[in-house]
Amino acid sequence: MKNYIKEHIDAFREENKNRARLLINCPDQPGIVAAISQFLAEHNANILESNQYSTNPKGGEFFIRLEFEMPQLKEKIATLEEDFKEIKEKFNMKATFKYVDQIKKVAVFVSKEPHCLLELLWEWQSGDLMADISLVVSNHETSREYVESLGIPYYYIPANKDIRNEVEEQQIKLLKEHDIDVIVLARYMQILTPNFVEVFKNKIINIHHSFLPAFIGAKPYERAYNRGVKLIGATSHYVTNDLDEGPIIEQDISRVDHRDNAEVMKKIGQSVERSVLARAVKWHLEDRIIVYGNKTIVF
Amino acid sequence: MKNYIKEHIDAFREENKNRARLLINCPDQPGIVAAISQFLAEHNANILESNQYSTNPKGGEFFIRLEFEMPQLKEKIATLEEDFKEIKEKFNMKATFKYVDQIKKVAVFVSKEPHCLLELLWEWQSGDLMADISLVVSNHETSREYVESLGIPYYYIPANKDIRNEVEEQQIKLLKEHDIDVIVLARYMQILTPNFVEVFKNKIINIHHSFLPAFIGAKPYERAYNRGVKLIGATSHYVTNDLDEGPIIEQDISRVDHRDNAEVMKKIGQSVERSVLARAVKWHLEDRIIVYGNKTIVF
Amino acid sequence: MKNYIKEHIDAFREENKNRARLLINCPDQPGIVAAISQFLAEHNANILESNQYSTNPKGGEFFIRLEFEMPQLKEKIATLEEDFKEIKEKFNMKATFKYVDQIKKVAVFVSKEPHCLLELLWEWQSGDLMADISLVVSNHETSREYVESLGIPYYYIPANKDIRNEVEEQQIKLLKEHDIDVIVLARYMQILTPNFVEVFKNKIINIHHSFLPAFIGAKPYERAYNRGVKLIGATSHYVTNDLDEGPIIEQDISRVDHRDNAEVMKKIGQSVERSVLARAVKWHLEDRIIVYGNKTIVF
Amino acid sequence: MKNYIKEHIDAFREENKNRARLLINCPDQPGIVAAISQFLAEHNANILESNQYSTNPKGGEFFIRLEFEMPQLKEKIATLEEDFKEIKEKFNMKATFKYVDQIKKVAVFVSKEPHCLLELLWEWQSGDLMADISLVVSNHETSREYVESLGIPYYYIPANKDIRNEVEEQQIKLLKEHDIDVIVLARYMQILTPNFVEVFKNKIINIHHSFLPAFIGAKPYERAYNRGVKLIGATSHYVTNDLDEGPIIEQDISRVDHRDNAEVMKKIGQSVERSVLARAVKWHLEDRIIVYGNKTIVF
Repeated sequence: MKNYIKEHIDAFREENKNRARLLINCPDQPGIVAAISQFLAEHNANILESNQYSTNPKGGEFFIRLEFEMPQLKEKIATLEEDFKEIKEKFNMKATFKYVDQIKKVAVFVSKEPHCLLELLWEWQSGDLMADISLVVSNHETSREYVESLGIPYYYIPANKDIRNEVEEQQIKLLKEHDIDVIVLARYMQILTPNFVEVFKNKIINIHHSFLPAFIGAKPYERAYNRGVKLIGATSHYVTNDLDEGPIIEQDISRVDHRDNAEVMKKIGQSVERSVLARAVKWHLEDRIIVYGNKTIVF
Repeated sequence: MKNYIKEHIDAFREENKNRARLLINCPDQPGIVAAISQFLAEHNANILESNQYSTNPKGGEFFIRLEFEMPQLKEKIATLEEDFKEIKEKFNMKATFKYVDQIKKVAVFVSKEPHCLLELLWEWQSGDLMADISLVVSNHETSREYVESLGIPYYYIPANKDIRNEVEEQQIKLLKEHDIDVIVLARYMQILTPNFVEVFKNKIINIHHSFLPAFIGAKPYERAYNRGVKLIGATSHYVTNDLDEGPIIEQDISRVDHRDNAEVMKKIGQSVERSVLARAVKWHLEDRIIVYGNKTIVF
Repeated sequence: MKNYIKEHIDAFREENKNRARLLINCPDQPGIVAAISQFLAEHNANILESNQYSTNPKGGEFFIRLEFEMPQLKEKIATLEEDFKEIKEKFNMKATFKYVDQIKKVAVFVSKEPHCLLELLWEWQSGDLMADISLVVSNHETSREYVESLGIPYYYIPANKDIRNEVEEQQIKLLKEHDIDVIVLARYMQILTPNFVEVFKNKIINIHHSFLPAFIGAKPYERAYNRGVKLIGATSHYVTNDLDEGPIIEQDISRVDHRDNAEVMKKIGQSVERSVLARAVKWHLEDRIIVYGNKTIVF
Repeated sequence: MKNYIKEHIDAFREENKNRARLLINCPDQPGIVAAISQFLAEHNANILESNQYSTNPKGGEFFIRLEFEMPQLKEKIATLEEDFKEIKEKFNMKATFKYVDQIKKVAVFVSKEPHCLLELLWEWQSGDLMADISLVVSNHETSREYVESLGIPYYYIPANKDIRNEVEEQQIKLLKEHDIDVIVLARYMQILTPNFVEVFKNKIINIHHSFLPAFIGAKPYERAYNRGVKLIGATSHYVTNDLDEGPIIEQDISRVDHRDNAEVMKKIGQSVERSVLARAVKWHLEDRIIVYGNKTIVF
């Protein structure tokens, strides 16, 4: 990693060393917010931001994300989590503490088209995507030069459907060695096996080049053109074993008209893909997303 | 029709009495534009607006829409069309002259939800939708009072799939009696038979409450909610016999998030439906649309 | 008021009889959320929604909006507010309880162009704008028929700058008699005196037909056209004594191009004005807005 | 220039060697389109695209842009332009022929913030911005490494208002040596003198970080934040001697809310600036823009 990027990251970590996030979901009932905020106040934490949502306030699922600051957080993590168990059990919560200075290790998978990778690297260089981009994996050599110029290791692993299992074995090994938290499929164009998806459940973010559920699968721009749509879009979602059916994180569209053939739509679409994927990855890195069933709550 | 609306229309017709539009498509080849504009110049017409498009300038399909003004147009219509036949044949054109002061007779079909009908009537009253809204047909009584208050006849024709043929027979009779040019399905919610569609080919405009081809068919908001999309949309298209598969005229979307349940999505979506349908109808009334295969060219 | 609208309102009030909102701002410090949520839990209230924001978590201003449900709310209002005083004083809060079933009394002021008034009335009829639209005041007779057809009193009060004081005296009297909570200037086109504005501070919502601060004052579409902008917009804001300088609630824009003259821009703009004003009024009615200095926090 | 970029450009030039554009404005009168298209047909040219517009069809200004293909164009350029003089004089036209394979020489001026420069270079590398980016001029060294890695000369010329004249003299010399057609101010942040602007009239494209005419001048994001706007924008325009008052080419906006301070607005805004400037430059390179008075017609 280049020095100036490392400096961005170090400054960010220092600035946020006492900052944490708490993500919770549980069956809704009176008293949850009071219990949590009481707990945080007793632990000397100041709530900086909080967002909540209930599928149905009368007996649905309750979701909350809190961001808080707590002096000497580092030394108190163990106590904090231990003390919270009582509330967690009482309300039957799924609860996770995230510590802001523990920035996530990211692997980017890319195929031949570099636009989504480039957008991520750019945001990253400017200090707008706070992550440790630990490696790039590709079945093409196209982006090696640029990736390595930023000090990021580039792994060329040829891939196709006949050697899927061997390829994934090699990839999983690599991802585990690097202790990767998030895998971003920045137009990787290869289908992953159920095994791979299982190993990294809710940790693989994909960008699909259509406004799902329209044009699931291959060649969405060609199909959009043939259908004569007036909008094209892009969708970022977590990968599950149902092709393009995973929980949607973000979508956006761009207007097209009869003059735009499939090739032009692809160009226009790349710009939407770039921004949709960058937003989705950012929200994931900031622990803004709770996956619930096949949907996301984005706080 | 209320007097002040009649006045709008009369003023518009007077103002545009010498104005016409020419819509053409034919195989592309050099010299088409020259031939047409030469012809119009010789006939003393001034071109006010012209738009052209080719699917492929080297041997594709050529499309053009011209709007022009010609002194004493009324008396010259017959000559004009007769004289144009030579060019039409030479270039193997599909060509139609439209005369702006011959405003189109529109029938609006509506079911229980009035929002799309209301938007059209509103635009119409303000003089922004230049048409003769000759009648409203509905399988509910809901909108009678308001429609009749504007001086538009309201026909209540109960409809369901068991009596489809009898109902359509009655409707077709009514539409023919009123010499209707365009049928707008403003959330009519009944499927039309192939016979009905054939009689009014490329003259029936529907609004579907999703960004097609996502959520074809019934209950798109429920399905959008269940899928967890972040955008909902609406699509206006010409009706063909493939459900929700006709040529798309216009689409738009609105952003939603996890807080929006199917009911809220429906409310948000109604606003998109209103504006998408109104734009599509307006373009049709202004002869801006050429249908080609399963697509539209909107000039 | 027509019966079916009254029924909407009655149903809404019954459904929300135990629901309240609490809007607070105060200097930020640790423990605020805990204190509030503890208080509500002790009073047997279930928090349904909560949103908070700090200008600066280390010593800025803190804002929160909570929506909660509390059994037998009606009988407990006095106790609730009394009991809250301790917290209010401790944290030096500006705090207001709002009771959802006490729907707000609204007066709409309109001049000749009815589009913004119509949008509000439409939303209101469909049950999407929960208010008691008690009267319409206008310096023109244009909209009388439609307004009265909905059972709303229509007051024609001619106005111009020479008789401003007398006119406003008459208007204030009327507004007080009707115990009006909110005044919506739906393109009223008359400047209000400082006295009038003072009497209804942060209770007058205006729609200005430009994206402020561009084109403050008169004839924004003409000026937008002359400047050759590619976007036109609308701004809804609370009225203060600085013309078009009050706290902005909502803004939106629409794309225009060189073909659109000032007249066309006005037509396009009306659609933006309608939706921007409707959103702003809705947020005000739902107590989603806190005014702080010359800005709004919209939760 | 890197080899793969040179290859893009060479392929484009070869493909478009017979393609030209004709941009015209003149007082409107009947027969203009006929005369032009007749002329082109006689010269064996096939019109691929044509767009026209009149400020007022009855005696306003007429504008047209045609794109056409003509066998052996290169050898016929002199004849073509000579032959057209007759029509040009007859209709009192301002008319320019542009030859698509003569790609424009561009100089990019940049200060410390590289985002707009990077967007342009990116589009350029992908073959989406067809230009010869001949040099980058900057008053900072920040972007040297990246620019030179693409094979583009980088000129560091310190600048401030005290040495404006000397600096501009040096810049003009450089621009003339390189025979520059277009100067893009990609957030250059220095005011140019009337002399400089005169030398490159309608050839300097600037990006301003607000939706003009709001927030003319310095620090627009700070001022937008202080005003409490709900939208921020960017404007690309030709530079004239009235600060931020030149003909607007393109504008766009992004939504912000109370949580976004000036720093965040700046980040959000950079993304709008990037795309607005890239679109404006592209349209200029494609000869899509006619400047008329203080406005642009963008075809």
